[in-house]
Amino acid sequence: MDFDLARQIAQEADTKIVLFVMDGLGGLPHPDTARTELEAAWTPHLDRIAKESACGFTVPVGPGVTPGSGPGHLALFGYDPLVYNIGRGALEAVGIDFDLQPSDVAARGNFCTIDAEGRITDRRAGRISTERNAEITAQLGDIPLNGARLFVEPVREHRFVFVLRGEGLSEDVADTDPQKEGVTPLAPAATKPAGEPTAALVRQFVEKSKPILADKSPANCLTLRGFAKSPDWPSLGDIFKLRAAAVAHYPMYRGLAKLVGMDALPVGPALEDSVATLTENWGRFDFFFVHYKYTDTAGEDGDFDRKVAKLEEVDAAINALVDLNPDVLMVTGDHSTPAIMAAHSWHPVPFMLRAKYIRHDECDAFNEAALQKGALGTFPAKEALPLALANAGRLKKYGA
Amino acid sequence: MDFDLARQIAQEADTKIVLFVMDGLGGLPHPDTARTELEAAWTPHLDRIAKESACGFTVPVGPGVTPGSGPGHLALFGYDPLVYNIGRGALEAVGIDFDLQPSDVAARGNFCTIDAEGRITDRRAGRISTERNAEITAQLGDIPLNGARLFVEPVREHRFVFVLRGEGLSEDVADTDPQKEGVTPLAPAATKPAGEPTAALVRQFVEKSKPILADKSPANCLTLRGFAKSPDWPSLGDIFKLRAAAVAHYPMYRGLAKLVGMDALPVGPALEDSVATLTENWGRFDFFFVHYKYTDTAGEDGDFDRKVAKLEEVDAAINALVDLNPDVLMVTGDHSTPAIMAAHSWHPVPFMLRAKYIRHDECDAFNEAALQKGALGTFPAKEALPLALANAGRLKKYGA
Repeated sequence: MDFDLARQIAQEADTKIVLFVMDGLGGLPHPDTARTELEAAWTPHLDRIAKESACGFTVPVGPGVTPGSGPGHLALFGYDPLVYNIGRGALEAVGIDFDLQPSDVAARGNFCTIDAEGRITDRRAGRISTERNAEITAQLGDIPLNGARLFVEPVREHRFVFVLRGEGLSEDVADTDPQKEGVTPLAPAATKPAGEPTAALVRQFVEKSKPILADKSPANCLTLRGFAKSPDWPSLGDIFKLRAAAVAHYPMYRGLAKLVGMDALPVGPALEDSVATLTENWGRFDFFFVHYKYTDTAGEDGDFDRKVAKLEEVDAAINALVDLNPDVLMVTGDHSTPAIMAAHSWHPVPFMLRAKYIRHDECDAFNEAALQKGALGTFPAKEALPLALANAGRLKKYGA
Repeated sequence: MDFDLARQIAQEADTKIVLFVMDGLGGLPHPDTARTELEAAWTPHLDRIAKESACGFTVPVGPGVTPGSGPGHLALFGYDPLVYNIGRGALEAVGIDFDLQPSDVAARGNFCTIDAEGRITDRRAGRISTERNAEITAQLGDIPLNGARLFVEPVREHRFVFVLRGEGLSEDVADTDPQKEGVTPLAPAATKPAGEPTAALVRQFVEKSKPILADKSPANCLTLRGFAKSPDWPSLGDIFKLRAAAVAHYPMYRGLAKLVGMDALPVGPALEDSVATLTENWGRFDFFFVHYKYTDTAGEDGDFDRKVAKLEEVDAAINALVDLNPDVLMVTGDHSTPAIMAAHSWHPVPFMLRAKYIRHDECDAFNEAALQKGALGTFPAKEALPLALANAGRLKKYGA
């Protein structure tokens, strides 16, 4: 929905919306059984909810487009992911609760291992521990730069966030990460003339990091990618008059949620933790984004059976969401991650919406075959939130 | 369809298109029976037409958006309702055959009842008779204004049209209708500096109306809303090369039709009257918009059984439309008005198109469940007219 239209017709109401996202939900048939993960899983509760819901599929970005986590979630938050795009660096920074300023430039950093010739032998530095990462980033953060303040913050394992703070900084800097092994990291370079002063600062940092990293093998080098400033986007409150909260354990999803004005609530890793956080905060918000990560992790690992097990784990816990009695419950994913592909994919994502004023359809189970009989058909993911708002009595009539 | 494209490929042909609109057609399942109005109604003729048609659902404005009558109809006429938006005042004026000039500003007026403190006790003045309305508006229309000509024209019951004619008038004037009871009408105020002279004229009118209305209880006060100028839109003739006629009894729908260049033909209130008017004028036009109001009225009143009865009434008369043998017959609604909501809603609207060159589908009845098996799926209402034009041989090939 166009945001000008949304601002015109959105209204407050005493209703609750829950968006439950199983990351990487959609799947593909296993060649041995011809059944998808959802078809293979025993999910009586999800199937019952499907019978009570309007069903279909969402298309996160567009036909054939495989989304990253950012676009996949932004679409479900009602933001056109082709318009509201965020650089990796800014996303990582916001995801670790780093207070990114409008003039800052951030990049995603990776520790890596190089050989005596400077060629990368391991792009992830053997996935060093987060503790070791913190020791090294503390030293790197003390590097003095002429012309900007520097922040180097640990994320997990080999990943860190690199931030420059100062005047006149630009995101027009190329990745130094060559995205493959056997070659040296790329020299920092501007992609446009406006990026040259920032690229010079990055070169300064990379040079000064070398003596510090020399004895830190396997983390004896670093790469940077996704130079980006923090986007200045309208919030869900501004656009849709929603008080929105994120119930997400993983930093990136908390970061995404905060970019659209959600409160990122403290929550543990398990689905039971999410339910507890939801229950505690039920009165304070209108909209809850609940994120479940492990379906995607299993899919990315190519572990069909583990993805099935994770779906069954969700099924065993999902009634707790229904029991909160939200006016609208949406169950979907941010994209498909078919285990047989071991990667994100472009396939439409299972979706169901349970609310009072919905039409019947013949979909009687929550899986890719049954959902094809859903009343909602296959529709852009960015339209899910407007549909939920309508079902929650939160959109006024348009036009006389 | 983009209008530039339409102008490029539209062609004349010796074919007839009928668009039959049952206002507020779509419904929702009744909680006691789990059947919608269309499912509950006995509609053998509509069902037979569905078997002979390509079937689906239209989305009037966008997912989740509940349309007013204006946007709902404009979409069916092929106009993007988010681009072609019309203020209430202009719509009401055109709907009573008032000859609105480009520089005029019109508003919708309501007589209301106020108590001794000036607070509204009845927003509709007990729905006074149209005759009484005409007596009072005649007096109001004689109020002399410094700076503009004034027209005050009765509509029905408590509703009237207020028009200012003069130089430099603006539609940037706020509603005086507070849209609730227990409060006083709002003082006329400009919404932008450009609206100030017009707001001053409205204040002059409101002040001078007070002594006239003082003894007219229950119509002892008035409110104004939807200040608007007449839009200057391209016509169906200009865009689609159609000679178009409206067969609509209610003023608002006649007004909408005239805004897009249709001739509004004289017609009585019953469906038989519409058929008679159609038959008489069959040779003079290419496109006929036939409007049936009472499905919406029943829905808005929350009267499920009456809506069912009205659908059965249509069913009994619909063969007369088929017997005219139009090249294309479309049967749909401008929006859904589920009786269980007693209001317009955002739900997609049943649609069928009967013509020579259509594909089979498995839809064998005209109701929300069966239409989900339709070949047309769920599509924007503004695409219905291009589809009809194609089926009527009225669109040339695009590109070499």
